[in-house]
Amino acid sequence: MPSIFTKIIAGEIPGEFVFRDNLWVAILDITPVSPGHALLIPTVEAQYLADVPGPAMAVLGDRLARLMAAVRSASGASDVCVLLKDGPAAGQVVPHVHIHVFPRFPGDNKHLGWPAAPYADGDLKVWAAKVRSAWR
Amino acid sequence: MPSIFTKIIAGEIPGEFVFRDNLWVAILDITPVSPGHALLIPTVEAQYLADVPGPAMAVLGDRLARLMAAVRSASGASDVCVLLKDGPAAGQVVPHVHIHVFPRFPGDNKHLGWPAAPYADGDLKVWAAKVRSAWR
Repeated sequence: MPSIFTKIIAGEIPGEFVFRDNLWVAILDITPVSPGHALLIPTVEAQYLADVPGPAMAVLGDRLARLMAAVRSASGASDVCVLLKDGPAAGQVVPHVHIHVFPRFPGDNKHLGWPAAPYADGDLKVWAAKVRSAWR
Repeated sequence: MPSIFTKIIAGEIPGEFVFRDNLWVAILDITPVSPGHALLIPTVEAQYLADVPGPAMAVLGDRLARLMAAVRSASGASDVCVLLKDGPAAGQVVPHVHIHVFPRFPGDNKHLGWPAAPYADGDLKVWAAKVRSAWR
């Protein structure tokens, strides 16, 4: 079953495109945090960013920076949030990579907060060693 | 005044490095959402992603994918969230780009929710045209 984004990219269902090339498209989220909220989506249907082909990953920085600039310019927001929920446990609903970019304004109360707490004694170094040794 | 991240990169204050090269470093967030929560930070002090130099942006996809893989592997999480608060109105506290990568687990209740609502009639197309015309 193709994802809803694959169907939009194929023109089978409507989408509001901001940009498209053969590697990435940007469309508007139809349920925006703020008007202008856009999604950067690889044309190849991949659930995880790790599965996005190399040529698309090589231009991710460029396409993301350009989309952020366009969202800023269109909305008048100086600041934006960028969010990727990479996998269902991360809150991903459509199993096709989509990077949210949305405008933020002072006092807009659209904070992405989360419960966080310091490490217990010694655990910071334990975890640093774990992640460091997992770097490839 | 150099940012706290610049000071960590310079070795003036301690940080738990996961990775470093001349363009990007990854360190652990000392107040993690979940253990293994890491920050990807450009070595050049830039407040906005738009100000990160081209050579660093050219490898952003690579470094981000590798950090995500390391966080996954170290934590055992299949899924991760990636978040950039680009500017103070977006909730950025340290004015030096830092991209959060943290593990997510089913039922962890660490959702990054936000108030969102559909566009009013016709506004979707209006905003699509705005953002599209702002694309450079």
